[in-house]
Amino acid sequence: MTDDKRVPPNQDDVEAAARRIETLAVRTPLLEAPLLNRHLGGRLLVKAEVAQRTGSFKFRGAYNKISALTDQEKSAGVVAFSSGNHAQGVAHAAQLVGVRATIVMPADAPAIKLRNTRAYGAEVVTYDRDREDREDIGHDIAARSGAALVKPFDDPYIIAGQGTVGLEIVEQTIGMGCRPDAVVGPVGGGGLIAGIGLGLDAKMPGIPLFGVEPEDFDDTRRSLASGRREANPPGRYSICDALLADFPGEATFALNRERLEACVTVSDADVQTAMAVFFSHLKIVVEPGGAVALAAVLSGQVACRNRTMVVVASGGNVDPDTFAAAIDTVDWNTPPLAIS
Amino acid sequence: MTDDKRVPPNQDDVEAAARRIETLAVRTPLLEAPLLNRHLGGRLLVKAEVAQRTGSFKFRGAYNKISALTDQEKSAGVVAFSSGNHAQGVAHAAQLVGVRATIVMPADAPAIKLRNTRAYGAEVVTYDRDREDREDIGHDIAARSGAALVKPFDDPYIIAGQGTVGLEIVEQTIGMGCRPDAVVGPVGGGGLIAGIGLGLDAKMPGIPLFGVEPEDFDDTRRSLASGRREANPPGRYSICDALLADFPGEATFALNRERLEACVTVSDADVQTAMAVFFSHLKIVVEPGGAVALAAVLSGQVACRNRTMVVVASGGNVDPDTFAAAIDTVDWNTPPLAIS
Repeated sequence: MTDDKRVPPNQDDVEAAARRIETLAVRTPLLEAPLLNRHLGGRLLVKAEVAQRTGSFKFRGAYNKISALTDQEKSAGVVAFSSGNHAQGVAHAAQLVGVRATIVMPADAPAIKLRNTRAYGAEVVTYDRDREDREDIGHDIAARSGAALVKPFDDPYIIAGQGTVGLEIVEQTIGMGCRPDAVVGPVGGGGLIAGIGLGLDAKMPGIPLFGVEPEDFDDTRRSLASGRREANPPGRYSICDALLADFPGEATFALNRERLEACVTVSDADVQTAMAVFFSHLKIVVEPGGAVALAAVLSGQVACRNRTMVVVASGGNVDPDTFAAAIDTVDWNTPPLAIS
Repeated sequence: MTDDKRVPPNQDDVEAAARRIETLAVRTPLLEAPLLNRHLGGRLLVKAEVAQRTGSFKFRGAYNKISALTDQEKSAGVVAFSSGNHAQGVAHAAQLVGVRATIVMPADAPAIKLRNTRAYGAEVVTYDRDREDREDIGHDIAARSGAALVKPFDDPYIIAGQGTVGLEIVEQTIGMGCRPDAVVGPVGGGGLIAGIGLGLDAKMPGIPLFGVEPEDFDDTRRSLASGRREANPPGRYSICDALLADFPGEATFALNRERLEACVTVSDADVQTAMAVFFSHLKIVVEPGGAVALAAVLSGQVACRNRTMVVVASGGNVDPDTFAAAIDTVDWNTPPLAIS
C-alpha cells in the first residue's frame, strides 16, 4: 500500500474502501423528523454516524487503512494519535483485524473516550495537550517499534474510508426517492468532508457540499479564502473536542479547496442548541463536534427552506455532564423549534 | 372495518397493516454495540423505535387504524386518550390521513408530549389523572361528536399495526444472517408485545417472547399467573409514564396469555441504568418506558449470555430533566458496564 500523503485518493479508492468495510461497518440510518422539517420549511435528513461501530464515522477510515496493511506491517502493530474518536476507531479496527494498537491521547480527553479506547484492547499513552506534541510522540513510538502510523485524516486510505459515508448518502436518498440539494458535514482536519465529496461524486456528481467548523477553529475556512493551508492560533477553546486539528491536511485540503461550496462556522452555543434538537426531535445522542452541521442549518448559515438537505451527525461520544448541560440550555417551555 | 375488541387480530392482519403503513412508517434500525455485546457475553440487537415518526412505535397502530376508517367515519374525526405517545401517534396519523383529532391527555404528562401533540395539529383536552377517568371523557367526546375512538391498545387494528415491529425484526435479522433466540419488549396495556408475537409468527414461528413491566405496574405478570385480567391498585408511581395502564386489554391479554414465555418486572433504578446504557453505548435517547426491555436484560432477568437477543426500545419522548437525572445515576468513573 502507499501512504504518500501528497497523493489524494480518488473515487475508485472510495469504492474499494466500501468493499473492504462492507461486512463490518454499520450502514448507518438516514433519519428525519416531521416536526423539524415543518419548522425548517424543508426536508432535513440526518446521516446518523453515531450508530457506527465505536460511536463515530472514524471506524470506517481506520478499518480501511488497517485491513489494507501488508502482513509484515500488521505484525509490527499500529500507532495513532487522536483526541478520541479516531482512537476508538483505530483500537476497534485493529482488534478486528488482529493487530496490536498503541494510541496517543490527550490526558484531558473525555473520560468515555479514554476508557473505551482501552476497552477495545489498545494500549493508551497520554500527553499534555498544551506542552507536548502528539505527532512527535506518535512518530517516536512508530520509529522505536516499527508500528505503522495511522494518521487521523491526512492519509488516502483514511479519507477513502470516510468517503463511504458519501456513497451511502447517495444510495439511501435514491432509495427514498429523493435527491439531496446539499450535504453538510463537520470539518476538523477535513478527512470526512473530503471523503464525502469523493463518495458523492462516485455515484451522483455535483451535489453541493458544505463544511462546518467551530468559530475559533476556522483553519479550513481561512485556508479556502487564502488559497493555502492556514493554522489555528494556539490557546483557543471549543466544546467541539473532535474538531480541534491545528490546520488542514495536505491531501484533505487539496480535495476540499476544489470541492467545497463553502466552509462556515458555528458558535459553541449554536452547537448546544443543535445537540438539544437532536435529543428532542431525532432521539439521538450527538457529541458537540458531531452537531456542527445541524447547527449551521439551524442558525441559517446553510439554507434549508424548500430544499432536501443531508447533515452528517458524525459522532456520539460525549460525557453525561456535557450532554446534560447542552440539553439544559434550551427553554423547553418556549422551545426554539416550536411550531408557529 | 370491525373494532370488536373481543376479536384479537391474526397474522394476516399484521401483514395487511404492514402494507398499509409501508410508505409512511419508518423501518426503524436494528442497532448493536460491540462493547455492550462483550459485557453481556452475547449479542444484543436494539429495535430502535425511537426513530419512528413521533418518537415511538405508536404511530404504526394509529396510522393502521385511522387509514382503514371509512370515508364517513373519517369525516367525523377521531378521539383518543393517552399518556402521551399514543396521543402523538394518533395526532400525526390523523394529520397525514386528513382527519380531525381530539386527544384526552393527563395534565401531568411530560411537557414535550403535550406540546408535540398540539404541534401535530390535534386539539388537546387535559384531565386530572387522580380524579377523572380518561375513558369516560373520551367516550363522552365520541358520543357527542360521532368521532371514532382510537383506543391505545385494545383494538385489533392497533395491535396489528404495532405487530409490524415483529415483522421487521424477523426480516432484519434474516438480512443480518442471524436468528433471535428471544425478543423482549415493554408491556403497558400489552398491544405492542401482542402485535410483535403475531408479527414474529407470521415470518418465523416460535421465537420466545418476553414482556417487561415496571415493578409496581405488573398487572400482566399477575394476570398470566392467575389466568384472568388483574388490575393495578390505584395510587402507585413509576417513572415509566408510558406503561401506566390500569389492566391488560381483553384482546391483548387473549394473545399474550398464549404467546408470552413470561412477563418480568424491573425497578425504576434498573430503568435509569438502562437509559444510561442506551446513552453511552447505543447513542440513542430512550424514555423510561422504552428502556424496560434492556433493563430486564441488564438486571439478568432475561438471559443474554451466548444468545442473540432483540430488545425493543419503544420510544424516546422524555423531558431533559428526566433524561439528565437518569444518565447522572451512573458513576462514569467506574461504570457498571466496564469491560473486565
